[in-house]
Amino acid sequence: MESVSQLDAVFGALADPTRRAILTRLTEGDATVAEISAPFRMSQPAVSRHLKVLERAGLISRRRQATAGLSHLEAEPLREATRWLAGYREYWDESYDRLDALLTALKEPPG
Amino acid sequence: MESVSQLDAVFGALADPTRRAILTRLTEGDATVAEISAPFRMSQPAVSRHLKVLERAGLISRRRQATAGLSHLEAEPLREATRWLAGYREYWDESYDRLDALLTALKEPPG
Repeated sequence: MESVSQLDAVFGALADPTRRAILTRLTEGDATVAEISAPFRMSQPAVSRHLKVLERAGLISRRRQATAGLSHLEAEPLREATRWLAGYREYWDESYDRLDALLTALKEPPG
Repeated sequence: MESVSQLDAVFGALADPTRRAILTRLTEGDATVAEISAPFRMSQPAVSRHLKVLERAGLISRRRQATAGLSHLEAEPLREATRWLAGYREYWDESYDRLDALLTALKEPPG
């Protein structure tokens, strides 16, 4: 059940373009709320709320450094979500195989 | 913008264990609401609401056959979501490389 609810939280957190952009920013290195907020037309409290959602999903961790809180990207939940989605690769490869077969059949001269 | 909001909808739809289970069921073949509902302790209207969320995200398509509506899994949005997540593979491989380096350093005899 633990991993089911974590997947819920991870996919829920990824369902927002600002939160996905924050994760992308954090691949470049840990950052403060001020640094994360800079490229967005968004207040720091609004960014903080997004960081809370990401933290609850386990996608980032936060630690204090001097007076500023640093956000850090956690790789494992992203890996888990990818692993879940990868289970469908077999299905979609099969879909493409069927499409290929159909296209080949269509290309064959009638007769 | 189109693909951004589609990713929002796809990840949002995946943030629920019943909806993920429905997608898994549909990898086995198209199914009616009654067939999809059978393994769940859930009413058909409740399952229908989940199907609507999946359809809006483009994860399934629905067509009428005789009197029953058939749900069909669509591979492309799952592929898109995986492609997005796969962009992080470089990051987490790097994280594991750093962990490996740390573990190696810890195993070296002191001196």
